[in-house]
Amino acid sequence: MEYTESINGSDLDIIFVATPHGAAMKEVPVLLETGVKVIDMSGDYRLRDVSVYKKWYGHEHSDPGNLDDAVYGMPEFFRSEIKKADIVANPGCYATATILATAPLLISKAVKNDIIVDAKSGTSGAGMVPSPRTHHPFCGESIIPYSVGTHRHTPEMEFVLDAVSKSSPKILFTPHLLPIVRGILSTCYMTFDLEMTDEDVERIYRDQYGKEPFVRFVDEPSVRSVVCSNHCQIGAKAFGEKVVVFGAIDNLVKGASGQAVQCANLMLGLKETSGLEVPGMGV
Amino acid sequence: MEYTESINGSDLDIIFVATPHGAAMKEVPVLLETGVKVIDMSGDYRLRDVSVYKKWYGHEHSDPGNLDDAVYGMPEFFRSEIKKADIVANPGCYATATILATAPLLISKAVKNDIIVDAKSGTSGAGMVPSPRTHHPFCGESIIPYSVGTHRHTPEMEFVLDAVSKSSPKILFTPHLLPIVRGILSTCYMTFDLEMTDEDVERIYRDQYGKEPFVRFVDEPSVRSVVCSNHCQIGAKAFGEKVVVFGAIDNLVKGASGQAVQCANLMLGLKETSGLEVPGMGV
Amino acid sequence: MEYTESINGSDLDIIFVATPHGAAMKEVPVLLETGVKVIDMSGDYRLRDVSVYKKWYGHEHSDPGNLDDAVYGMPEFFRSEIKKADIVANPGCYATATILATAPLLISKAVKNDIIVDAKSGTSGAGMVPSPRTHHPFCGESIIPYSVGTHRHTPEMEFVLDAVSKSSPKILFTPHLLPIVRGILSTCYMTFDLEMTDEDVERIYRDQYGKEPFVRFVDEPSVRSVVCSNHCQIGAKAFGEKVVVFGAIDNLVKGASGQAVQCANLMLGLKETSGLEVPGMGV
Amino acid sequence: MEYTESINGSDLDIIFVATPHGAAMKEVPVLLETGVKVIDMSGDYRLRDVSVYKKWYGHEHSDPGNLDDAVYGMPEFFRSEIKKADIVANPGCYATATILATAPLLISKAVKNDIIVDAKSGTSGAGMVPSPRTHHPFCGESIIPYSVGTHRHTPEMEFVLDAVSKSSPKILFTPHLLPIVRGILSTCYMTFDLEMTDEDVERIYRDQYGKEPFVRFVDEPSVRSVVCSNHCQIGAKAFGEKVVVFGAIDNLVKGASGQAVQCANLMLGLKETSGLEVPGMGV
Repeated sequence: MEYTESINGSDLDIIFVATPHGAAMKEVPVLLETGVKVIDMSGDYRLRDVSVYKKWYGHEHSDPGNLDDAVYGMPEFFRSEIKKADIVANPGCYATATILATAPLLISKAVKNDIIVDAKSGTSGAGMVPSPRTHHPFCGESIIPYSVGTHRHTPEMEFVLDAVSKSSPKILFTPHLLPIVRGILSTCYMTFDLEMTDEDVERIYRDQYGKEPFVRFVDEPSVRSVVCSNHCQIGAKAFGEKVVVFGAIDNLVKGASGQAVQCANLMLGLKETSGLEVPGMGV
Repeated sequence: MEYTESINGSDLDIIFVATPHGAAMKEVPVLLETGVKVIDMSGDYRLRDVSVYKKWYGHEHSDPGNLDDAVYGMPEFFRSEIKKADIVANPGCYATATILATAPLLISKAVKNDIIVDAKSGTSGAGMVPSPRTHHPFCGESIIPYSVGTHRHTPEMEFVLDAVSKSSPKILFTPHLLPIVRGILSTCYMTFDLEMTDEDVERIYRDQYGKEPFVRFVDEPSVRSVVCSNHCQIGAKAFGEKVVVFGAIDNLVKGASGQAVQCANLMLGLKETSGLEVPGMGV
Repeated sequence: MEYTESINGSDLDIIFVATPHGAAMKEVPVLLETGVKVIDMSGDYRLRDVSVYKKWYGHEHSDPGNLDDAVYGMPEFFRSEIKKADIVANPGCYATATILATAPLLISKAVKNDIIVDAKSGTSGAGMVPSPRTHHPFCGESIIPYSVGTHRHTPEMEFVLDAVSKSSPKILFTPHLLPIVRGILSTCYMTFDLEMTDEDVERIYRDQYGKEPFVRFVDEPSVRSVVCSNHCQIGAKAFGEKVVVFGAIDNLVKGASGQAVQCANLMLGLKETSGLEVPGMGV
Repeated sequence: MEYTESINGSDLDIIFVATPHGAAMKEVPVLLETGVKVIDMSGDYRLRDVSVYKKWYGHEHSDPGNLDDAVYGMPEFFRSEIKKADIVANPGCYATATILATAPLLISKAVKNDIIVDAKSGTSGAGMVPSPRTHHPFCGESIIPYSVGTHRHTPEMEFVLDAVSKSSPKILFTPHLLPIVRGILSTCYMTFDLEMTDEDVERIYRDQYGKEPFVRFVDEPSVRSVVCSNHCQIGAKAFGEKVVVFGAIDNLVKGASGQAVQCANLMLGLKETSGLEVPGMGV
């Protein structure tokens, strides 16, 4: 890793590490040694518990020390920690949509800890490498459930939601591949612990996100409205003792590089929205 | 309605009534008077209880007598009744996918009566009339939840599932509009009342549908596999006390005209699969 | 190639060879030796001239003898030859749409030999193997011109059109990849040599194809109308000295296996339309 | 039109008129009277000849005086005129892609005046009002030629190309509706009058557009690369005496509001690229 020589003594402030899972935890400690700040795009620094990491990623974690220091890069819940962090774990795309959609009700103790997440993602979530599942003749004009109950964002959601709400959430997560390129819609089903109306629910979300630059509670959330932007749209509807909450993001922006830039702005003392004030594709 | 004159004394055996809700219940009694058999494609004869009908369709039912005699046109559960019926109510598209996916577990008393149905439909489900929601620039490259908890197929699913399982099911139904033309995937979440493995679940479905010509339990159900055919694919996966069941159909075939032809074959003493032995679009 | 032993003495009538270009010309002679009839799906037997083959496919042709005997499997122009053939070269997908669209005007000497073909194909034309071009995040929501002027169907179209019209056609062929799974639209531009109205043009097509089971001249051809069927729709419009002709097929049916079955029916003395009487996806 | 009262004496600099064809020419003269500058998004001020206007739009032009003064809002060819204009006619979407793609070869006298334009547009080009053609179940998974040879952008292209090249071009224009939301690819076929290589062609385009902020000559132009941006990608390939030129834009940006903002920047003495420095959806 000779490139660290050129980092030492350079005026680099921050590095975005975009390697596969497993590779990042080899690079990150070397980079941190040089004194540069790091935002890691992989899953390597998102879970705190090395045994959970091993269970879901299939190998030991080789950098538990920095894992302890890593901050989860979701400004809506960890803004002050991100500002001071040397190493930030950028959230997963499904996790971003789902945590933003469900955390406020968990934090307010309005719902039980049992959550069903039925999520739908565009194909760009699968990455740049062609595969049978993202081969257009296979995924076009269809919708395909996959990794049912076994997707790695499950422990990430549970860990982070517990960190912010102390509610020990249990998530049943079913991702589906949509025949669109960009965008995630996470449809989340929860059960009330308190009696709540739609208005009560809306108030919780507006209280939580009212000052956030990139999260909006709306009547009719849709993927199209947020694609190409760093925005997250959230909508909710109560039905007796159940509530459905929708979270919509662009998986490549708020669910990846956009959120990373938002974190970098915070880490470097820049304006949080710098470079992110793009309205998106809109209608 | 002078066309009944040409029906009287003709050799017509059966009529498919494809009118909007509300119009069908005006036509059907006149047609039945002529002695012809009727399959109604609308929602007018799917619910038995006129007060439930009024609540969800917004007007009184004007033909309660024939409503009492109408048989729900799902051969998998009402084959012998369909054979003898004069009036068959052809099932709704979402209802078909969802009932076929959930009934076996309810019948076997393996699950509680609380069901979450997260369904995704192609745009052809919205009919022939252009509307803002099906305008391509609006629905393309997006996924849009709509009629959350208020869709008319909710009471239809509850009524029919109760008729076949005596389980008083309560359904929270969230339909989503997909940017594909044909196909429905209904993702259904239930809670076990018994301890069950994936194998136990599979056995229940194979016992229920093993001899059915158009319902198959598969490992990886997908919309593409059934589009253009009368087939329904079902898949299931158990997670602790929860189970996810998928039902995939072509909303225009098994979810509409194909199922109607299947019923007509039964009502007329023809081979049940006549005209329906098309493999579909496949992979 | 020991499988030929099991063919010898068997009651096999016909074999469809579906191998890559280059592999087929190794298999076909061995199969023909056994006395079985062969339909080859590759490009190996579509061109008569071995030097043209070498130029476009990049290697020598190793079976020039059978190449001489091979019949081009397009029943609309070679029906009687196909009936008697032992080896049929099944046409390419682009070639099928384009030849059916342009041959009648060339045969009738109504147009010059200079043809521009602007063709658009669904992604299934690229085959089963995932590649960067058919990776959904790349080809979705786009249209991509490729192999401009260098596609191998160019000499195939020129050779076959010359065989049926003796007009020495020169084709400039520009294929485009569409973000749909199935279907080809070939938009063909020609220059009149005679003065012609739309009615004159239509008469030429109706005279040519009036009795064909799978080719229809229509006002508004579209891909959707023919997908999942063996039909070809053709439309045309004259503008002064130019004429635009559209040919629409399902690349996987009339442009591949459907046409092969049509040929097999002819070769085996079966009804030409057997197994092919499927209406397609329609509107 | 009482709103002009509030314009009089206000500090409004410029008004974008976005009304249907026919309505704009009623509004524009009233607005110009107030001294404000106007950019008209409709087709009303794009053609200079009132008889051509009447032929293609079906009614008389009621404002021929301002029509004489209107400048065609394509900065690449009318930058200095736009800077001084009071009334700018914003170009049509198809016209933008096609003129940018073909003008350089016409200007350089490298090609004959006979041009075939095979264009493909996303559905947003059809506007906000739902119609049968843009109903998703009709246009999804298909490609539909329409208005063959009768589209109103034909005289616009011919008029503007003649204005810039004095070549009396004759265009055969065939638009197709693509099942994507945004983007136009215009595939243009021309015949050389001079002998030219690919390098010669490329040099002509680089000379013409080398300093343009929004037009790029590239090897592989695609719609995806320009969607959500004000960029135009152009590619070209020579084949003997023919040449194919591709022009790709986002019909809603460079083909509509983006180009209008570019003109407004010029008319108001602002930086030409203000508000338009968005990279687009990219890969």
